[in-house]
Amino acid sequence: MRVLVTGGAGFIGSHLIDRLIARHDEVRVIDNLSSGHSEFLEHHIHSAQFEFYHGDVCSLEDVIEATKGIECVFHLAANPDIRLGTQVTDTDLRQGTIATYNVVEAMRINEVKTIAFASSSVVYGENAPMPTPEDYGPCMPISLYGASKLAGEGLVSGWVGTFGLQGYIFRFANIVGSRATHGVTYDFVHKLRKNPNELEVLGNGLQEKSYMDVGDCVDAMLHIMSTRNDSLNVFNLGSHDTISVRDIARIVIEECEAKDAVISYTGGDRGWAGDIPKAMLSIDKMLETGFNVRMTSEEAIRHTARTVLKTLR
Amino acid sequence: MRVLVTGGAGFIGSHLIDRLIARHDEVRVIDNLSSGHSEFLEHHIHSAQFEFYHGDVCSLEDVIEATKGIECVFHLAANPDIRLGTQVTDTDLRQGTIATYNVVEAMRINEVKTIAFASSSVVYGENAPMPTPEDYGPCMPISLYGASKLAGEGLVSGWVGTFGLQGYIFRFANIVGSRATHGVTYDFVHKLRKNPNELEVLGNGLQEKSYMDVGDCVDAMLHIMSTRNDSLNVFNLGSHDTISVRDIARIVIEECEAKDAVISYTGGDRGWAGDIPKAMLSIDKMLETGFNVRMTSEEAIRHTARTVLKTLR
Repeated sequence: MRVLVTGGAGFIGSHLIDRLIARHDEVRVIDNLSSGHSEFLEHHIHSAQFEFYHGDVCSLEDVIEATKGIECVFHLAANPDIRLGTQVTDTDLRQGTIATYNVVEAMRINEVKTIAFASSSVVYGENAPMPTPEDYGPCMPISLYGASKLAGEGLVSGWVGTFGLQGYIFRFANIVGSRATHGVTYDFVHKLRKNPNELEVLGNGLQEKSYMDVGDCVDAMLHIMSTRNDSLNVFNLGSHDTISVRDIARIVIEECEAKDAVISYTGGDRGWAGDIPKAMLSIDKMLETGFNVRMTSEEAIRHTARTVLKTLR
Repeated sequence: MRVLVTGGAGFIGSHLIDRLIARHDEVRVIDNLSSGHSEFLEHHIHSAQFEFYHGDVCSLEDVIEATKGIECVFHLAANPDIRLGTQVTDTDLRQGTIATYNVVEAMRINEVKTIAFASSSVVYGENAPMPTPEDYGPCMPISLYGASKLAGEGLVSGWVGTFGLQGYIFRFANIVGSRATHGVTYDFVHKLRKNPNELEVLGNGLQEKSYMDVGDCVDAMLHIMSTRNDSLNVFNLGSHDTISVRDIARIVIEECEAKDAVISYTGGDRGWAGDIPKAMLSIDKMLETGFNVRMTSEEAIRHTARTVLKTLR
């Protein structure tokens, strides 16, 4: 299949591309390398199956160019920094909502059939029961990032309903693993490398969320797309359990061998305005497709800490 | 209270302003008069309570100017033509999603506390059970208009969650009544005035939806806002029953005294790609606040036909 991956040089995108190349797809990437890393793709650069297009999903012209001759788009490009919305309010609008408009509109223009959209558990907001099923409503995100993901879902479903696209909407738990470029584990490792005697934790550390290894995440997407064929398919992707930020701190301290580190907490029930303190997705619908995750939240976190550490050595 | 109404020169906005002026609020309107009518507001133009700002919600600068000194914004401005999305794909993005971003962002900048946002039953999509409760999910709109309303809900909830705004999200059924500027009743009256012998109906006429009189709609909003005070409040607004397009055609033909009119159907289960054939909202949550509607769907349609006819005589 001829596949386009937006944000393909990013953390999740680059893992997805490894799988797509392995299954003999022809893969094009559009990435502006603002948060992606070309090193993540350098092992494919000489492959005849692989093409890199240095473009910006915020430009409709670029996306029209990138979608030519494509059969399926994995739309992963987005601002990866949820916290940024508290400071700069138009980043998620531009890099999330308007970029997703550009993607579905370019697909309509170039008659590309299928889109897989990386949405997020944060669309549910902070009042959802846990584990949260796909049919929970009303979705009331509390971050600007979450608002842009909900908008993206609507754009996908709108283009499916009006122009006959096929859509897969994947609501991701916290995705972690090798090549992570952000997130709590990444931050903790970097903080401890800078100062092994101190670890500042945003909030009271009682935040408790579900983490999924990036390998599990991309395998789940590909499995669901090969086994489900509705015009619109909505799936939570996550793991079976949760882990608290305090436990993540403990694991990272272990892995960094920073046994003298003193943990301090900035206080409050969340890391920042718009952070959701507790999140766990129901993954029953994913499990019904026959896919299961290999890692628990703790295993995924420990694996992430180790791989982040390795890049720093 | 000092209130801003976006789209205040429109169909619903002008009725809302009549109520706000009557309850002694100070009312500012921002409207670019692209689909609004200044005649709808001419009876307030000399009132000291009333101020008209000829501006565009698509301009952040205009909205920042319009929200200065305001305590509460009713954000009603939007592209009123749902069908247009099948032809022009960026209208709802600009006049819906980006305009709503401008409104909440201007409110943040000017420290305006409360927003009432006019959302729509179309956010639910076409697979929802009927009557559809507010907690139905996942919301998968099938029109570009619906996508922009879902995006608007996320922006309101995102700004509530991140910046402490208070939000009221009202999901409207089909709102009809005097000063209607669009919609099936309006279209049928105009078609029959042009040719009393023929009435073309989009689809098979079996589309069946709930209609709410605009007077009931604006009274419901004001009642809910005076009796509910959560940080985020989501309410369906509609009536107790539905009416089919065939029955609407019959009523309009009666009211137009066009008894020789031959009805033709363009066929298919919907009026256009992105039209939802059947829609009825659960209004239990609205009723629990102590508000009830005065008109049935049929009464609201008949009243609308009469008032549209009156403007043509």
